[in-house]
Amino acid sequence: MRVVIVGFGVVGQSFAKLLLSRSADLYNRHGIKPRIVACVDNSGSAIAPPGLDLKRLLEAKKTKGTVGGYEKGSTKFDSLQVIDKVDAEVMLECTPTNLNDGEPATSHITTAMRSHKHVICVNKGPLALAFPSLIELANYNGVMLRFSGTVGGGTPILEFAKRCLKGDRITSFQGILNGTTNYILSKMEQGRTYDSAMKDAKEKGYAEANPSLDVDGFDAAAKLVIMANWVMGMKVTMKDIQRTGIVNVTLSDVKNAAERGNAVKLLAVCDSRQLHVAPTEVAKTDPICVDGTLNAVTFSSEHSGQQTIIGRGAGGMETASAMLRDLIEIREATFS
Amino acid sequence: MRVVIVGFGVVGQSFAKLLLSRSADLYNRHGIKPRIVACVDNSGSAIAPPGLDLKRLLEAKKTKGTVGGYEKGSTKFDSLQVIDKVDAEVMLECTPTNLNDGEPATSHITTAMRSHKHVICVNKGPLALAFPSLIELANYNGVMLRFSGTVGGGTPILEFAKRCLKGDRITSFQGILNGTTNYILSKMEQGRTYDSAMKDAKEKGYAEANPSLDVDGFDAAAKLVIMANWVMGMKVTMKDIQRTGIVNVTLSDVKNAAERGNAVKLLAVCDSRQLHVAPTEVAKTDPICVDGTLNAVTFSSEHSGQQTIIGRGAGGMETASAMLRDLIEIREATFS
Repeated sequence: MRVVIVGFGVVGQSFAKLLLSRSADLYNRHGIKPRIVACVDNSGSAIAPPGLDLKRLLEAKKTKGTVGGYEKGSTKFDSLQVIDKVDAEVMLECTPTNLNDGEPATSHITTAMRSHKHVICVNKGPLALAFPSLIELANYNGVMLRFSGTVGGGTPILEFAKRCLKGDRITSFQGILNGTTNYILSKMEQGRTYDSAMKDAKEKGYAEANPSLDVDGFDAAAKLVIMANWVMGMKVTMKDIQRTGIVNVTLSDVKNAAERGNAVKLLAVCDSRQLHVAPTEVAKTDPICVDGTLNAVTFSSEHSGQQTIIGRGAGGMETASAMLRDLIEIREATFS
Repeated sequence: MRVVIVGFGVVGQSFAKLLLSRSADLYNRHGIKPRIVACVDNSGSAIAPPGLDLKRLLEAKKTKGTVGGYEKGSTKFDSLQVIDKVDAEVMLECTPTNLNDGEPATSHITTAMRSHKHVICVNKGPLALAFPSLIELANYNGVMLRFSGTVGGGTPILEFAKRCLKGDRITSFQGILNGTTNYILSKMEQGRTYDSAMKDAKEKGYAEANPSLDVDGFDAAAKLVIMANWVMGMKVTMKDIQRTGIVNVTLSDVKNAAERGNAVKLLAVCDSRQLHVAPTEVAKTDPICVDGTLNAVTFSSEHSGQQTIIGRGAGGMETASAMLRDLIEIREATFS
């Protein structure tokens, strides 16, 4: 399978490392031999129809800051040209999430689909803003759109919902979908103020310099959009989500909750009546009540009862493993 | 699909009710129209090649105590005759678990396989005592053996491990696999003695009159055997499991653990060095540390990190939903 990688940050590089370490085993166990035939980052591109040498590609990125350093004096193509022109079966969209207009990822995806490439997307932006139309475009062009890495990092939350409860119907779900805010709220439960907990999260690398994406609930809302569409068959986007962040949660809110045996969590909820992200009191005995950077989702189904799935919601290698699952799924669905 | 049900207790009846309530939907969504062509319990049998009337079957069981009351003056066939002679694609083994010699379930399963029927088994006995040879017999006869309902009730623990982590390798797992002992240990954590907690569990219907299967760790060990074979590809049976029950756990053990921020749980562990069931201290902050009758399993994999899945481990309808998943899987694998 020929693969184009667009965006070569932590996740893209982790994916290349994963392929390096697993290539023999992937062929033996799943019959796939992925070749990265092109890679683009925001300063350059590397193209090699027989497959790029991944060690050299990672080395170029490390030493020269761009995959453009892979080949001396190579022509610089922009990402859309590469996606459109390079022969490949799959495009991996790994650029940073932009929840304002979804670009440049949305253009990458639509260009890939129009040139009949399957898309594996770890970028929440395009999905949060235009999930229903992207699925339509994929169907129209006869390609698959997969995005396991967007929710739960390596934790297969989307797969669980789609594959593990066959013959049953998921009627609702709720989840802690953002690790940064969960870390901050967990620290507040230990007695730290919001500001102090935020400082700690920044020092540990859990929060960005501008943490709005996390603390205002955008990241959790984007994941909620993806799950509501994929798991529940809703046709919704960001604007359909009622969203409240954690910036107004006070230490006394957290203390009062604790006195009732509860903890305050930024909960994303999807059922027949509501679709929202908001700080919510959760009983400490509820399996969903996890601490630190963990994510957790509880699915309620008609006959199988309630199930909770818990795991780390982030990590380069974890997310890369989710992308690899998508790749195997595309292989199984299209080449069988 | 023609189905023979052997054993018509809570689980078998729940399965019949589930089919009654879901038949139209099952055909529309999964293309299956399961017909129960025969049903056997320990006092009689009911056979109807075009499919039994499930309402009447449930009514006969309720009013006459046996499915033999379905048809007036019907000949009584024993279970092995029915399994061997009735034309069907699938046999559902729902008799009570027997961990001594696995009978009569083992004979039901081997007879079904030899007459080329797929087997869905919710009985842990045959699997705990002879998993590797039953899989071999299934392969030899070209039939499938499925048993989702044996571990976790409706919680798709086995499916999660097999389907949700493709491209990755599960390197170890540990779990709370028995709800009764977890209920007792949770009550002890609240300050009750073992005897008082056991009395409570019996009153609530969580523990049997003879609770040895649970409290001596047999039930958890049987589930560990199933998981070790299915998830890790080991070829083991009950005799390979080191097993310690909870009968010697004292209130002071539980209190001492609590002082260290831990809880005592009956943990089943499978990794490269050990395969055992034993009371073990678990940190209360660990997602696996669930209370009451819940089950929980944590899988560790090479690249995707750790994931925990939590749900009720029992319940007639939940287990029936797991059997239905197996049926859909068999349909998809064999008729496509």
